[in-house]
This record gives sequence, C-alpha cells and structure tokens, in this order.
Amino acid sequence: MEGREYRSIWYEPASDQVRIIDQTRLPHHFEIRTLATLTEACEAIRAMRVRGAPLIGITAAFGVYLALRENPAGLREAVSQLQATRPTAVNLRWALDRTARALAREPPDSIAARALQFAIELADTDSACCEAIGEHGSLLLERLWRAKTNKGHPSVNEGHPSGRGHPSTESPGHPLQVLTHCNAGALATVDWGTALAVIFKAAAKGIPLHVWVDETRPRNQGAALTCWELRQAGIEHSLIVDSAAGHVLSRGMVDVCITGSDRVSAAGDVCNKIGTYPLALAASDNQVPFYAALPVSTIDFDWPSMESPIPIEERGAGEVSMASGIVAEGEEAEVRQYPESSPIRNFAFDITPARLVSGIITEHGVCKANRESLAELAGG
Amino acid sequence: MEGREYRSIWYEPASDQVRIIDQTRLPHHFEIRTLATLTEACEAIRAMRVRGAPLIGITAAFGVYLALRENPAGLREAVSQLQATRPTAVNLRWALDRTARALAREPPDSIAARALQFAIELADTDSACCEAIGEHGSLLLERLWRAKTNKGHPSVNEGHPSGRGHPSTESPGHPLQVLTHCNAGALATVDWGTALAVIFKAAAKGIPLHVWVDETRPRNQGAALTCWELRQAGIEHSLIVDSAAGHVLSRGMVDVCITGSDRVSAAGDVCNKIGTYPLALAASDNQVPFYAALPVSTIDFDWPSMESPIPIEERGAGEVSMASGIVAEGEEAEVRQYPESSPIRNFAFDITPARLVSGIITEHGVCKANRESLAELAGG
Repeated sequence: MEGREYRSIWYEPASDQVRIIDQTRLPHHFEIRTLATLTEACEAIRAMRVRGAPLIGITAAFGVYLALRENPAGLREAVSQLQATRPTAVNLRWALDRTARALAREPPDSIAARALQFAIELADTDSACCEAIGEHGSLLLERLWRAKTNKGHPSVNEGHPSGRGHPSTESPGHPLQVLTHCNAGALATVDWGTALAVIFKAAAKGIPLHVWVDETRPRNQGAALTCWELRQAGIEHSLIVDSAAGHVLSRGMVDVCITGSDRVSAAGDVCNKIGTYPLALAASDNQVPFYAALPVSTIDFDWPSMESPIPIEERGAGEVSMASGIVAEGEEAEVRQYPESSPIRNFAFDITPARLVSGIITEHGVCKANRESLAELAGG
Repeated sequence: MEGREYRSIWYEPASDQVRIIDQTRLPHHFEIRTLATLTEACEAIRAMRVRGAPLIGITAAFGVYLALRENPAGLREAVSQLQATRPTAVNLRWALDRTARALAREPPDSIAARALQFAIELADTDSACCEAIGEHGSLLLERLWRAKTNKGHPSVNEGHPSGRGHPSTESPGHPLQVLTHCNAGALATVDWGTALAVIFKAAAKGIPLHVWVDETRPRNQGAALTCWELRQAGIEHSLIVDSAAGHVLSRGMVDVCITGSDRVSAAGDVCNKIGTYPLALAASDNQVPFYAALPVSTIDFDWPSMESPIPIEERGAGEVSMASGIVAEGEEAEVRQYPESSPIRNFAFDITPARLVSGIITEHGVCKANRESLAELAGG
C-alpha cells in the first residue's frame, strides 16, 4: 500500500497497540484501526473488520492479550467471549485452545506479557505457514501451466472429450486461468494468504496468470478484497458474479479453481464461504481441478466428516438487503436494495464433499482430500 | 397492485397508447411508462424496463406497431432494430418472424392497424399460454406434495440414501419447498408468468408452499421482482444469495427447482439466466428435480443442441459495480460498490445441459428434456 507493506494485524511495541486494517472500509478506503480492549477485538471479528479463518484466530490471540492487560485474571472470560464471536471457522477455537494452554500455568504478573508474546509468535507462524502454502501450491500451478503450454493451445480444457468446452472465441488469451471465490488472500491471514499465496508465488515465478474473481455475495469479499489485493500485486483479473462461475468453467475458460477454507473435516470435506460447493460441482462437471489451500490448523480432526453437522453461521439480513459504496459526489452511502418486507436467510458457509476436492494445499505439501492422506500430513 | 390487476404490457385504445410497468423501478416504485415510438420500445427492451423472454417478444410486436404508425413503410427497419436489442432470448426472433409474416402482404393504409391487432393477439395468446403452463405445472407440484405428505415427513429428501441431506433442524416446516432463480413471473410475460404461474396455480389449489428465491445477480430480478410478485400474491418465500442455493439443496430444504428459460435447444438444453446451470448441478447432486417452464415458442428447433454455440449476451460492467436503492432519507440513490479499476465480465446467460433437466413444462404439458419428446410436443 503506497509503497509500504502492511500485515492485516500487527503489534506496535512503542505504543503498546494492536492494529488492524479495517476490511469493511475496503476497497474505497484503506483505514487502520486500533484494537484497545477485548470488547473491541470481539467487535472487530463479529463485524468482520477482520475476517478469514486464519486471521480471526490470530486476532483472538491478540484479544486475549488485550483482556489480560486490563485484568490478569480474565483468561477464561476472554476465551469464552472470543469463542462466541463466530461459530464456523475452526481456527478461532484452535488459536484460543493453544493460547489457553500456553497461559495455563502463567502467574498473574507475567500472564499479559506471555499472552502478547504468544500472539506475536502465532502471527509470525501464520505468515511463514502461508508462505509455505504458496510455495507448495505454486509448484502445482507450474505443472498445470507446463501441461497447458506443452499442449500448445489456450486452455487445458480445449477439445475436452466431453465436448462441453467452447474455448474457441471466448478464451481471453494464453495465461493460466485460475478461478477463486471469496478472499483467501493476505487480508484473510496475517500475510500472504492461502489461495492467493499460491497465486502470488506463481506470479513471482513468472507464470502468466489471469484470475477469475467471484464477487462473493452478500459481503462481496471477492469484489472488494480479492480484486484489491490482485490490483496491488499487478495480477490480471476479472470480476464475475458468483453464478457466472459455472458458465466460464463450461466454456473452457478456467484451468484450475483454488479457494481457502474455514474448516476441513478429517475426511477432507471442505467447509468454506457459501457458494464453494456449487463452484466445486461445476469444476467437477467440467473436469477442472478444484483445490482448497489452508494451514493444517484448519483441519478439524474432531470433525469426522460432513455426515456430522457443524454449526453453519447465519448472518443478518442487512448484509443482503443493503449495499454500500460511493455516490456520485464521492461520498459514502448505504442504500436499501430490497424492502424490509422481503424475508431473507443469510447462510454464510457451505460444505463441499471430499469427492469434489482434487487436493488440499497446506504448509506441509499438497495431499489428497481423504482421511489417510490428511492424517499422514498432520503427523508429518 | 392496490386492488387492480395489471398486465406487464397493454394497449389503451382510448389514447392509442402502449403502456408497460417499468421493471427497473421495482421493488421500490410501481411506475407505468408509455412507449410512444419504435426508439422507446427498443430502449425499454435494451434497458430491461421490460425483460423476460416472452415479454420482450410481445414488446417487440408492439414496437413494430409503433414504427408502422409513424411510417407504414418501416417494417423491415423496425424488425431489424428490435432484433438487435438483445441477442439470446429466442422469443424476440419468434415474435418478429411471426409479425413480419403476418404483415408481409398488408397494404400501407392498413398495415399499422393490422400490426396492432397482431400484437394484441400475441399478448392474449401469451397470457392464455402461461395460464396453461401454470395448470400443467401445478399438477406436477400437486403430485410432489402428495408424495411428500404421504411419506409423512417435512422434506421429500429427508433420509435420502446419499445421507447428504440434513433436514433435521433446518427445515423451516412442512410446505412444499420450491426454489426458483431470476424472475419467471407475470413480469417476465404478459401475465401469469412461466415458473411462477406454476407456483401461483399450485397455491390457488391450496398446496402450502414456501419459495426460495435466488437474488439473481447482477440485476437482482429474484430479489426485486420475484419477491415482489410473491408478496403481492401472499405466498411465503425467503430470499437467498445465488450461491446459497447449493447449501439449501444439500440440507434437504428444497423439494423441486423451477426456472423459466430464454431458449431451449431441440435436444432439451436450457439456456437461461446466468446461474441456472450451477443450480441444476446442485439439484442433480441432491436428487432434487429441476424443471424449466416455458411456452413452446421458447424452443428453438433451429438450435440442434448446446454443442452448437448460440450468442450469450455480455452486458455492461455497471450492472455489477453499481447498486441502487433507497437511502435513509427515503430518496433513491445509486452507489458505486467497486472501483472502476476492477475489470468486470458480465455474462447474462448460461446453458444447462439436458441431462440435468428433469422435464420441460409447457402449455401443451410436461415432457422430457430430449429431442423426441420435444418434437412430439411441438407437433401435438
């Protein structure tokens, strides 16, 4: 941003302050916000000023520090309040469990300092972890790109035996065509991202890329955040509405789909932003590989498979019925798109069965979406 | 509307005027607009003041009258201008072909009057046709409803052998659960609608219904028009974002999907609003039937199958990047959601392969989505 690199969350020792990029202000405004208290940390997660499974975990760890800074006896209450902010992403629980364990035997006079140190360590680990995800995934894109260029035609799906691809006139050129949903970028983690880390690393290796970005209703994280990150990085991209992903896939205009995840079952089912499941169906129907990129901390070995229900967050109707942006005069405004009389259900996540997932990209490498491979990966 | 029934387009003999409901003003304003010239008819179709495959055909027929009223020699030019307004829906070509044939031998002094008479006949036929679609489709919903209630549980998908349904806690009750995409209601035709005619007729027969309405980005016809029509008719419904259809299907919360269509191939492939294809995939993956409801005029026997490309309209970026609605003070405003620097592709339609279509509901009955059944239907 303006020649300076930012993380999505960071600690400033001089002022003893935790700061975040307020993601609800993007893409129109780049605004830094200070989290001063546990209440502010909870609000930031709930209002999605910070979002993305890895980042809400790290924010929770900093939230514990903010709580203990005020009240060294407040560990249990802080963990409970933070855990209640959002129900689906497992990284929140993971980070809070780790933090609570690390602080369990810490005396009151050092507990806040230890919590801060632990949160900073978690943040640094997350950053390194995402970079490793990017490295592993970029090898995969490199292989796909080689296969595509060796075939000497604009799309790996061209001339597909199913005959359902129509790449002829619509293929916008020769780059590797990647499709992503929601924002699994640097803004969803401390740094780098998960799905976007793969894209950033592949671009850095000189692979020509074009990224199809799903708008990702109702909060538009694809349009507002992913497009913003790709623009900053100078990577070619096109925004489409979520329901157009099937069309571009069917026309041979996509070589690979990559998303992040909020929770992966031990069997390889991928819980992620609403719309990931129909996207994976369309990828599968067109023989385009679909990958989820995530840190191992997103795998919930306590969740055996999607046959066992997990809480799927339902959010407020206003996210759907209201739209915000800039009016002609350059000022911000929020408009009501649909009358309040329209009953709205706003499911935030869906679950993609492992059978539709070509592989899981983690900091330890790429593995198959099944119980054995995931168990081996976590052990290794 | 306020106790009065309106058609979406009508002719007022006293004033010699063609009037429409301006659909770009809904749901916030119910506004009637006069089409006085060919240019205004073309603009109304292009700007989607009237939309929906059947309705744009009828509007084109009235557009021919408006042209000939000014210039009795203007038939060929009028047909050519109207045909160029929108490329995908076949009903436009169908209505213009019929109109041109009907007027071919008409002398200049009577051609305008004959064009008007023909447009009125087409409108009346469309209305009767849609009512028949509704009748045939409602029998289908009645059968599904009987099957569901006989099984004595809230969803026909409950206890599905795939085990992928989780109807337990999330099923919002016992009505027949119908999901629809875009607006295939009275506003998409002269009267009644296609998919919504089925719903209106089933509701009139006393079948308890709940309709899941896809928002239908980027023009939000589901949220703005379908919800409005269902509200007027007092039919229970919930609005969801397009990408949530997969989730509600996977949770056993949908018994049947019904959409309209802009063009059906001779082989039964259904070209319809962008997002219909991934919806049909998700329906198929959860063994939920997917039907398209349409007049026989929507079947394009010159289009052998989806292996042969048809033009898929790409519309302007502003439909995606801008949002309009009501601001707090009750005034209308348009906001820019995404910066102009975001490159946008806005595909308006996709094609659902016949293999995913459970059946085609027409004014002649319900038939299978294959070459033989469609040919038989059109012949009968």
